[in-house]
Amino acid sequence: MRRQQFLEVKEIALAYLKKAGIVLTPQESERIEIADFGLNRLEEIGLQLFVYMNTERCCAKELVLLPGQTCPQHLHPPVDGALGKEETFRCRYGTVYLYVPGPKAEHPHASPPAGREKYYTVWHEIVLNPGEQYTIYPNTPHWFQAGPEGAIVSEFSTKSTDEHDIFIDPAIDRVPRIAD
Amino acid sequence: MRRQQFLEVKEIALAYLKKAGIVLTPQESERIEIADFGLNRLEEIGLQLFVYMNTERCCAKELVLLPGQTCPQHLHPPVDGALGKEETFRCRYGTVYLYVPGPKAEHPHASPPAGREKYYTVWHEIVLNPGEQYTIYPNTPHWFQAGPEGAIVSEFSTKSTDEHDIFIDPAIDRVPRIAD
Repeated sequence: MRRQQFLEVKEIALAYLKKAGIVLTPQESERIEIADFGLNRLEEIGLQLFVYMNTERCCAKELVLLPGQTCPQHLHPPVDGALGKEETFRCRYGTVYLYVPGPKAEHPHASPPAGREKYYTVWHEIVLNPGEQYTIYPNTPHWFQAGPEGAIVSEFSTKSTDEHDIFIDPAIDRVPRIAD
Repeated sequence: MRRQQFLEVKEIALAYLKKAGIVLTPQESERIEIADFGLNRLEEIGLQLFVYMNTERCCAKELVLLPGQTCPQHLHPPVDGALGKEETFRCRYGTVYLYVPGPKAEHPHASPPAGREKYYTVWHEIVLNPGEQYTIYPNTPHWFQAGPEGAIVSEFSTKSTDEHDIFIDPAIDRVPRIAD
């Protein structure tokens, strides 16, 4: 991702958080992270996030999604013999469509990013509006996409080790790289 | 606590959450908990809380404190051979004065409830305003009191087992009991 796009999207994410009444300190605002998953299609495939804390035992984040933006399918495997990450998503603003294993939605609200369809294999749909939440246990493939307003999602979880997440799209690189 | 007081304080807690932009579903609003710690002095010594989720591995809550209300000193010991609860408090609204072991504050903002002073033994002061947070590791005695506006505090933690908390005031009973 180019630095200019990073800066623009960071400001948009901060504006979303502000609109939802979520206060970050000025120092925290600088720590907003933007993941484009190495696909260079940030507005379609990406995630803005702020990590409140991430200790050996638990973690809390806010995720901000732009309208229609997708976080690609992945799962959290065991790490060093310990159980993989468990996470609860709670919608704060907008709508998020979450997909997990289970009976396929007949008319899913979301559609995968063009050209990457084969890497979206779970189609049981959970719709989360503000105040609604869902817990994803380890080893459960999942992906999600924001509705037309975008979305803010609080994530409450065990320790987060993004570098261990397994994405099925082989082109994905979870570690953000910013070009000048 | 009398049912009438319980219902009144529940409405106040919901109004605080609403003011801070924290959305609960109607069903969730019914699940607000009020702890008076068995001391029957709820406005001085008590806590209103909403538990988002509490699994075997992690937990998230919102705590609402009335102006000047105190959560008495306690700690989270090991449970069944596992590490005790770790919790991060993040202030969302108002101000909270948190006390933990360490150098005593010269002029602490909070004062313990009258008559129970001897059960407040840690005096290192952490002041949390909106956007500020602090992590309390297991076995660490702590207590907290809201400032004059009251406070909302998000708690991100490992599994919560309130019944195992150790309060040093022997009159305290953590399990709320409501009389008609």
